[in-house]
Amino acid sequence: MSRLPVSLEDVKAASARIAGHVHRTPVLTSTTADALAGARLFFKAETFQRVGAFKARGAFSRLTLLSAAERARGVVAFSSGNHAQAVALAARDLGVPATIVMPDDAPALKLAATRGYGAEVVLYDRRREDREAIARQLVEEKGVILVPPFDDDAVIAGQGTAALELLEEVPDLDVVVTPCGGAGLLAGTAVAATGISPVIRVLGVEPEAGDDVARSLREGRRVAIAVPETIADSLQTTRVGERNFAILQALVEGVVTVSDLELRQAMTFLFSRMKLVVEPGGSAAAAALFAGRVPDVAGRRVGVVLSGANVDPARFAELVAGLPA
Amino acid sequence: MSRLPVSLEDVKAASARIAGHVHRTPVLTSTTADALAGARLFFKAETFQRVGAFKARGAFSRLTLLSAAERARGVVAFSSGNHAQAVALAARDLGVPATIVMPDDAPALKLAATRGYGAEVVLYDRRREDREAIARQLVEEKGVILVPPFDDDAVIAGQGTAALELLEEVPDLDVVVTPCGGAGLLAGTAVAATGISPVIRVLGVEPEAGDDVARSLREGRRVAIAVPETIADSLQTTRVGERNFAILQALVEGVVTVSDLELRQAMTFLFSRMKLVVEPGGSAAAAALFAGRVPDVAGRRVGVVLSGANVDPARFAELVAGLPA
Repeated sequence: MSRLPVSLEDVKAASARIAGHVHRTPVLTSTTADALAGARLFFKAETFQRVGAFKARGAFSRLTLLSAAERARGVVAFSSGNHAQAVALAARDLGVPATIVMPDDAPALKLAATRGYGAEVVLYDRRREDREAIARQLVEEKGVILVPPFDDDAVIAGQGTAALELLEEVPDLDVVVTPCGGAGLLAGTAVAATGISPVIRVLGVEPEAGDDVARSLREGRRVAIAVPETIADSLQTTRVGERNFAILQALVEGVVTVSDLELRQAMTFLFSRMKLVVEPGGSAAAAALFAGRVPDVAGRRVGVVLSGANVDPARFAELVAGLPA
Repeated sequence: MSRLPVSLEDVKAASARIAGHVHRTPVLTSTTADALAGARLFFKAETFQRVGAFKARGAFSRLTLLSAAERARGVVAFSSGNHAQAVALAARDLGVPATIVMPDDAPALKLAATRGYGAEVVLYDRRREDREAIARQLVEEKGVILVPPFDDDAVIAGQGTAALELLEEVPDLDVVVTPCGGAGLLAGTAVAATGISPVIRVLGVEPEAGDDVARSLREGRRVAIAVPETIADSLQTTRVGERNFAILQALVEGVVTVSDLELRQAMTFLFSRMKLVVEPGGSAAAAALFAGRVPDVAGRRVGVVLSGANVDPARFAELVAGLPA
């Protein structure tokens, strides 16, 4: 087997670098959830992470590696979601100038939040401009450092620190399940969990409409899809990262899918019974377990990452309030 | 000073008895909340307690004191809220028969939940019958043990265990603030906090429309009021407990009030920024701090109890979704 791009030692080093910058999030349990899933579940609540999602881990992991010269030049990220805010926050905390490339039709609240962290926001026209090209131009002209949302060793190592903490707290897990978009979280989790214990099974969960990673693993190559139509806006990636995919092929048992209805049912259960706010994509792993879509978990001890909570009140109400508790 | 009915030692003993039965809930922080309040806030999230509220502590504290003969005869409680479910849960866990006296117009979900814990539910007609008389009859005829919602030493000691945990985790608090209904939580908190450090200031928060405890403290006697009209259904008590009041007079700095709008604003902030589900009454202490109603907290380290999260999705959406995040 060729050497993987990220090791358990990298995750541990990331954990040491980001300590003090990110929260150690709580691990929550619920006998009602256990009964529903037929397994013993340990929920790692990254919903309480800074910026409301695990993305803060990867951003701090990458930015704490910058040299003094790189810090002075600054960083750039393109994202309209949690990654943008994570990079903006990490940059502010570390005194690094940040530019975030966002679509000009991004929600006003998200623009305001990103600017609120002190980042410079560069708007582009979704229909006519290429955000990657804009970011690349900044990299070439000003020498700023691009912080990719998932296809990056330091970012993957950072995302793996959530699983590291989970396994420190609950050492004897049989399985760990995470949501899966570009697979930064899933890859980092796989490195951390199987590095600690090779017998731990690691699985990812993606929306039915955006099953590119499941298909990629079956076909043995990175399948690209159109932007999937799903309520899980944080999992609307169109192709898994290259470095991430190598890790998934080596260390992950599989990726299963959930429907939008199953995501809503999980959000409703997490709200009503566990008193947790979880965004649609952030509840994917829980949804798969509640819907019985993860194989061979009966009676097992299962770690479940709740990866994010950034959903506005009106949208949350729309998704949750209509369903029976 | 005459001896108070509950001491720090009683709280510690309760803590030992209920360990394993209740959750040690997480303490959460938020720099955004700190900025809003102008103080350093430490949120004790009893929203994640069993049955979704601190009430589980008091119920287990009381029921673990029952003798074998008392356990066999069983317990009774009258409540349509969190206390009923807490007593039903504790009774089930400890193998004690439980009867809960509830109004016949209680929400179907609450009736189902209480029966789901295995309790026998006795319905009464709110307009024509007296629930206390019904409970007293059960006590006299069958010898069952009445578990009062707040005016009871073991219940007060149990509720104090939340503050005990909070101060174990964050020892150097200047102030602790809790919601206040019948004052079981506030009294227990005052005993625990001032027992650990006499200089810690303890305050309670009640709804403007139900300011009986604030008035009682000012007048030096227990003032009774009509059922107050407020969205804080868990704080609609009409008179503070006798034992509770003695403790409040000795150990509590004061009780401040918040409006229903301030409760909704706090619920919205806790949802949007801290990703927490908190019921209206459960957010009273946070609301008072966010609205600047707690005196002399600038720059202080303040413990804030988020006391419960039992609110159904549609009601939550109604209260939260209409306000700006």
